[in-house]
Amino acid sequence: MALKLYGVGMSTCTARVLACAEEKNAEYELVPVNLGAGEHKQPSFLSKNPFGQIPALEDGDLTLFESRSITRYLATKYSDKGSDLLRLNNLKEAAIVNTWVEVESQHFNPAISPIFYQRVIVPAFFQGTPDEKAVEDAVVNLEKVLDLYEERLSKTKYLAGDFYSLADLHHLPYTYYVMKTPEAKCFNSRPHVKAWWEAISTRPAFKKVAENMTLAG
Amino acid sequence: MALKLYGVGMSTCTARVLACAEEKNAEYELVPVNLGAGEHKQPSFLSKNPFGQIPALEDGDLTLFESRSITRYLATKYSDKGSDLLRLNNLKEAAIVNTWVEVESQHFNPAISPIFYQRVIVPAFFQGTPDEKAVEDAVVNLEKVLDLYEERLSKTKYLAGDFYSLADLHHLPYTYYVMKTPEAKCFNSRPHVKAWWEAISTRPAFKKVAENMTLAG
Repeated sequence: MALKLYGVGMSTCTARVLACAEEKNAEYELVPVNLGAGEHKQPSFLSKNPFGQIPALEDGDLTLFESRSITRYLATKYSDKGSDLLRLNNLKEAAIVNTWVEVESQHFNPAISPIFYQRVIVPAFFQGTPDEKAVEDAVVNLEKVLDLYEERLSKTKYLAGDFYSLADLHHLPYTYYVMKTPEAKCFNSRPHVKAWWEAISTRPAFKKVAENMTLAG
Repeated sequence: MALKLYGVGMSTCTARVLACAEEKNAEYELVPVNLGAGEHKQPSFLSKNPFGQIPALEDGDLTLFESRSITRYLATKYSDKGSDLLRLNNLKEAAIVNTWVEVESQHFNPAISPIFYQRVIVPAFFQGTPDEKAVEDAVVNLEKVLDLYEERLSKTKYLAGDFYSLADLHHLPYTYYVMKTPEAKCFNSRPHVKAWWEAISTRPAFKKVAENMTLAG
């Protein structure tokens, strides 16, 4: 039976899971959730994710939410299919993957989220203009993180080593949208970060997902 | 060779790792880092964690940082010792553990951190008085999360099921400190959350760690 992923193709967190499902050639059905109608706050969706956020995954009688736990599940369940995203057979490599998975979650995501919000969400959903001060503050934080990425990526092709992993994949959706804004310069001005972004964003699995990421430009 | 954990016993993120090491009866040496002297911003520590934050772990030639990736490493390396914190032999249970690990990371921690900061860090390190408005705002967020925990914990004894897991363990350090503040009421006013806290905070492994958590009264 195919996986059922409840979400929206243009949503960052749904796209994170889709990128992983595509890397794994997993069979899935994307079940649209009508956010405009508040479907994610209705009992039938809240029974899948009590936090009322997309995405949620159903795999038979198993229901999961939180995009980063769903990708981990898919990478484990399909460990022998497609890219080896968690290095489960190598305790040390897996530990390094998990360290950079946490870096994305604790450092990169909080830094890039306000830029995504101001530059993409505010104009698209609130017909507003970005708060430039909020963007500026976020850029300071993002550049600190990217300086460390630049150093790291001068030593290894990908964040966890010379192999593509879940740590890289988790960066795709937010960065994809921000690369369509003036803040793309944060990435493009750092040669190793730029090369890394080109390597991970041109993977066929993500290119397929990105076709539906139509929030910006 | 024993693990070397660089950190400070009273620090929340160090305590998170220590609680896991104790659950696993792992042999480790806690190597103190002098935060007051800025040792965590010096090259010798930055080579362990470029983000300049405690804790960092050395296990032979492997160096890790980010407390939640270190606990995952210990829970995997010592999967056959002590409590089974990740349910690695059960794909579905492991996926549910990972979902609630993410809930702590993405929802609970951002909600409780400002309370910890205002009530514990500001008085202890800055001889200041807490920003009551910041506490109030954080309480609103924390209570939303704890309402969902109350519902969840009315069905299962622990967050991921009727077994103690890394998802529960990750909550220990911040909650321990906040339970010494007036905001303990957020936990104590919800019967299932209160019972859960009593169950997880009285485990011998954590009681040992808590002896050194002396930041607050």
